[in-house]
Amino acid sequence: MNFDILFDPKSVAIFGARPEKNRVGYALVANLLQGGSRDLYPINAEFEEVLGLRCYKTLSEIEHPIDLAVIAIKASDVPSTLRDCASKGIKNAVIISAGFKEAGAEGAALEAELTAIAKENNIQLLGPNCLGVINAKSDLNASFIAKKPLLGHISILSQSGALGTSFLDWANNEGVGVAKFVSLGNEAGFSEVDMLEYLGNDPETSAILMYLEHVSDGGKFLELAREITKKKPLVVLRAGRSTRGMAAVMSHTGSLAPEDAVFASASRQAGIITITSLREFFNIAKLFTLGFMKPLPRLAILTNGGGPSVNAADLVELSSSLELATFDDATKNALRGVLPSMAAVGNPVDVIGDAGASRYESALNILTERDDIDGILVITTPQMMTDSAEIAQVIIRGSARKPLIPVFMGGTSVAPGVQMLREHGMVNFELPPDAIESLDALGGGRKKTPPFPTKQVFASSVMLGFDETKSLLSAYGINIFGTFVRSQSEIDTVWPTLNTDAVAMKAISKDVIHKTELSAVRLNISSPEDAKRVWDEIVSSVHAKLPDAAIDGMLFQPMVRGKEVIIGAKRDATFGPVVVFGLGGIFVEALKDVSMLVAPINHNEARAMLEGISGANYLKAFRGAKPVDLDGIADTIVAISRLMTEHPEISEIDLNPVIATSEGVYVVDARLMRK
Amino acid sequence: MNFDILFDPKSVAIFGARPEKNRVGYALVANLLQGGSRDLYPINAEFEEVLGLRCYKTLSEIEHPIDLAVIAIKASDVPSTLRDCASKGIKNAVIISAGFKEAGAEGAALEAELTAIAKENNIQLLGPNCLGVINAKSDLNASFIAKKPLLGHISILSQSGALGTSFLDWANNEGVGVAKFVSLGNEAGFSEVDMLEYLGNDPETSAILMYLEHVSDGGKFLELAREITKKKPLVVLRAGRSTRGMAAVMSHTGSLAPEDAVFASASRQAGIITITSLREFFNIAKLFTLGFMKPLPRLAILTNGGGPSVNAADLVELSSSLELATFDDATKNALRGVLPSMAAVGNPVDVIGDAGASRYESALNILTERDDIDGILVITTPQMMTDSAEIAQVIIRGSARKPLIPVFMGGTSVAPGVQMLREHGMVNFELPPDAIESLDALGGGRKKTPPFPTKQVFASSVMLGFDETKSLLSAYGINIFGTFVRSQSEIDTVWPTLNTDAVAMKAISKDVIHKTELSAVRLNISSPEDAKRVWDEIVSSVHAKLPDAAIDGMLFQPMVRGKEVIIGAKRDATFGPVVVFGLGGIFVEALKDVSMLVAPINHNEARAMLEGISGANYLKAFRGAKPVDLDGIADTIVAISRLMTEHPEISEIDLNPVIATSEGVYVVDARLMRK
Repeated sequence: MNFDILFDPKSVAIFGARPEKNRVGYALVANLLQGGSRDLYPINAEFEEVLGLRCYKTLSEIEHPIDLAVIAIKASDVPSTLRDCASKGIKNAVIISAGFKEAGAEGAALEAELTAIAKENNIQLLGPNCLGVINAKSDLNASFIAKKPLLGHISILSQSGALGTSFLDWANNEGVGVAKFVSLGNEAGFSEVDMLEYLGNDPETSAILMYLEHVSDGGKFLELAREITKKKPLVVLRAGRSTRGMAAVMSHTGSLAPEDAVFASASRQAGIITITSLREFFNIAKLFTLGFMKPLPRLAILTNGGGPSVNAADLVELSSSLELATFDDATKNALRGVLPSMAAVGNPVDVIGDAGASRYESALNILTERDDIDGILVITTPQMMTDSAEIAQVIIRGSARKPLIPVFMGGTSVAPGVQMLREHGMVNFELPPDAIESLDALGGGRKKTPPFPTKQVFASSVMLGFDETKSLLSAYGINIFGTFVRSQSEIDTVWPTLNTDAVAMKAISKDVIHKTELSAVRLNISSPEDAKRVWDEIVSSVHAKLPDAAIDGMLFQPMVRGKEVIIGAKRDATFGPVVVFGLGGIFVEALKDVSMLVAPINHNEARAMLEGISGANYLKAFRGAKPVDLDGIADTIVAISRLMTEHPEISEIDLNPVIATSEGVYVVDARLMRK
Repeated sequence: MNFDILFDPKSVAIFGARPEKNRVGYALVANLLQGGSRDLYPINAEFEEVLGLRCYKTLSEIEHPIDLAVIAIKASDVPSTLRDCASKGIKNAVIISAGFKEAGAEGAALEAELTAIAKENNIQLLGPNCLGVINAKSDLNASFIAKKPLLGHISILSQSGALGTSFLDWANNEGVGVAKFVSLGNEAGFSEVDMLEYLGNDPETSAILMYLEHVSDGGKFLELAREITKKKPLVVLRAGRSTRGMAAVMSHTGSLAPEDAVFASASRQAGIITITSLREFFNIAKLFTLGFMKPLPRLAILTNGGGPSVNAADLVELSSSLELATFDDATKNALRGVLPSMAAVGNPVDVIGDAGASRYESALNILTERDDIDGILVITTPQMMTDSAEIAQVIIRGSARKPLIPVFMGGTSVAPGVQMLREHGMVNFELPPDAIESLDALGGGRKKTPPFPTKQVFASSVMLGFDETKSLLSAYGINIFGTFVRSQSEIDTVWPTLNTDAVAMKAISKDVIHKTELSAVRLNISSPEDAKRVWDEIVSSVHAKLPDAAIDGMLFQPMVRGKEVIIGAKRDATFGPVVVFGLGGIFVEALKDVSMLVAPINHNEARAMLEGISGANYLKAFRGAKPVDLDGIADTIVAISRLMTEHPEISEIDLNPVIATSEGVYVVDARLMRK
């Protein structure tokens, strides 16, 4: 879709224009009037004039062509008005009006009508139930947001209007400009994914911040994100995690990969910067405003005060993607040459409390020349000799040579410095953590999002029977370990072929789901005679609890010692098949130490998944043991990825446990669920 | 120590007073003059007059008694001046001057002199190298901080002056008042612990915030904190973690309990609220300013905008100590009765974008009456109908009935609301995460501090020999599992007493530290004959690599199956003996899933340690297995705690692995290190 005209219409019709202040219909006209020169056509049968402009009774009175319709009338009148727009050949519409999907069934029906009209007539429809759209470059404010944003190069795409108004109000105060702002509303017409595609290609947008409550098309979203993030940063604040806790799962895998974790994992796959809180959303916008679009991993800290720089250094060391740059002797000596003897010339550099601007400048002149420093956090606390405005000027000059991140800490004493930065298009971070957290996010810092408590509800899926499970897996080269024995009489024939000293025996029955609790598994059986006896014991213990259980036979699995892992898959509502890998047993149960990837997954990606868990070393040469067959595990992951892609009816898979040894990979138990 | 006079002196002598602005000696006099009425005596031989006050040449010229000396002269002159003060009977001194310990050996010698003089003459000495002291109630500003703080009920104790100036400057801007402020400097006289004790008993201090880089007396600190936190909140920002990374350790336990983790753990034991970043330090001061000294776990959220409240709800659910209050039907119905149909009456309550102040008030009238809500986050985004000042008035009124936490999000549009709050002694949180993070901290939320990367250096400790290890442990009732066999010839006699089918054999030798690598351990030996053969094999394999190794004998341990845990201890620089508990093997190696407590530890505390690890369930009835002997593990922890307390020469202990079964606890391997 091409939104060039939406973002820079030559002529705009405003349905529901009104002359009374404090009405949306007034604000829309006033905001458009304050912007760039455009032909504006207020429409409202009640009025002759709105804000000095002729007010039209109907669209048909207007003879000129109209690029954009902005509609703020009552919901029930919107469909007919949109039809009128279609008849006049209007191709872009912003529907501000509320009272649609969000208001219940009747509204949803009205909204469906809008969708149909827009589709039929190729109208690019924004909303309904949105704030509108802003383009700072073309000076278009087709929204009812009071204040014009400053011109910047960040674009904001928000599924919450309230977040938009707060952000823009805050941004004006903080010196953060925007390129384009879009309040998405109910997305009856184009979606956040359509607009994302446009902004990805928009030369005036150098970074995109999205507030997302839902994703319309997960696959398309990831595909786009992968392309966009090659060119510009894409930040996503995913909200509504607490309302998505309810998940329908039948497997371990399902409970290990709640939607939220899948979203975070898929986003990282696509290079998206995922953040958790509004504080990060606002702070990272400041980094972009300063022009920092790429990670700045090696940081120097320059300060006039010990405590704040010590805390900053702590936070850098604790971050996932940042480090304190190491200064060589030449750098330290150069600093010693220009700073008083009591100053600290390591990293952090402390120019001490009585530093004036010139001392900051001497230090910055040295640090900005170092190739092994990517960025400098310049922390200023208000002390006796501190002239914050002069220090700000030093920072502004130094910024031409190296990314400088200003942190003036305090209130009125540092206000002149903050003001000076603003006047030069720069911004200030209130406290060191604000700067460091956003630098870490920019560096892809947050490797793991905190796990979200999932309330599990068990789904109505059906577990596949043993034969079907076995044959479906084997079609993908995955064999359930062991030999299936249909009756006791086969034991003598089968036993020699097992080629082992001892086996585990498991009852195979569609009625037996929790084998351990029914004593349907027995270990360490070392002769055919024992096997026959155990067969009877298993059958009676199962029938003692489930008298009608049909037992198809027993699986004989040679006792194998190795490391337990779990490989599973589930179908995510947004992204489709997701494969999950983790260590088995307690690791997966208690610690939820798993990695996951959206399918399709190739062998290299699968190998990377093995590295993605905290306990990765356990599988390698560990405490003198040989490494397990990592390629074998990866092959199984790839096979499960293919199975899930090619069998959309399969909802969840647990291969659990899978025993990995240095020789191979043994699938000891497998459960497949079908929707 | 009693600091009543330090905080409210009737007469103050200012050494180094000066008439030139922008000098510390000027600022001190000016600040004291601006405060409450006191007799001020500037002293400086160069001047006749400072700020209209008579300036004395020497202390001896002053006939009146002096309560407090404030000293801002060059470092080398301070000792003689302090002696003069002693002669005059001055009992309280604030030394602002720098150039002491922080400036090298010469300065350190000067500082030692100050310590001696103060001690000899019972002078309560603050500093040197500090900003000074402020008491808002008595209107004393004996510091060179430009602006007077607002009167409040929080006291600040800071080992960083720069943090102090920033905090106070910020606090004035944000409407955060303070009771007492102390910049500790080098602590040549009294320490942060002494001042903490005073503030703990100070009726004007209802919460204490400390910025700490080091603790003078860990034991005293914890003891005090335990008492204080029964009465008022104590918040500690521990800084300098990145500079403390270097730790001397020889054991697993040592590497699992770096100083930083011990500090966090010990602080939690004592009820301290530990925080990591300056952002939290500043935000929690706002909570205290609002009067919230106790946790507010069950939160309601009231908002006029979807997105911000959804993010807030997410963060509440992700927090450790907070939850969204559940509304019963009566509450929901009452809300429905006063709110428009499109409003959301669950939690969050969304009064929607066109809400005026009266709609906020209607909702608050209902929510503030609910006993199952502890606090209400009131989020306001700037929308068309939003009158932030009126909404602020509603919040101010509602605060009389229930803790309300205001979050006006934005810039100039919400400034009138923020201003209104200030005028009524309230404060505003800029964004929902600011409020929620500090509420979580107040609730003791941060259960685990993020692990800090420890650079290990191996210490010069000595590992105790087998006999000594065995006898020291057995004195505390801990037996190393198995039977020690001195020579092959004893095997036949010993074997029947082992009462087992199979044993592990381990060489015991002070020269063999890494048993596995030297093949000095063998498993599953099932007869005395095998044991004799294996004995020879072990001896030759050890001698193949270490020809001179002396082998004292072999430990025969019956093969026991159970769950592996580690119990260890180390001696922390600040707090002394610390006992560490975790699951064994991969859990402890890769995941560092451990809990720790400062000794002494009683049985109940030890049982709580078992619950303190993520994998706690693994030890209980898990997957059909019986619970292990939890009391036995706890007994071992208590015994190790006693051993460490009574044997100060022991620096580290590793009992690893310890095999726990439902029957008992088996210490399979033990290493004790002596300094």
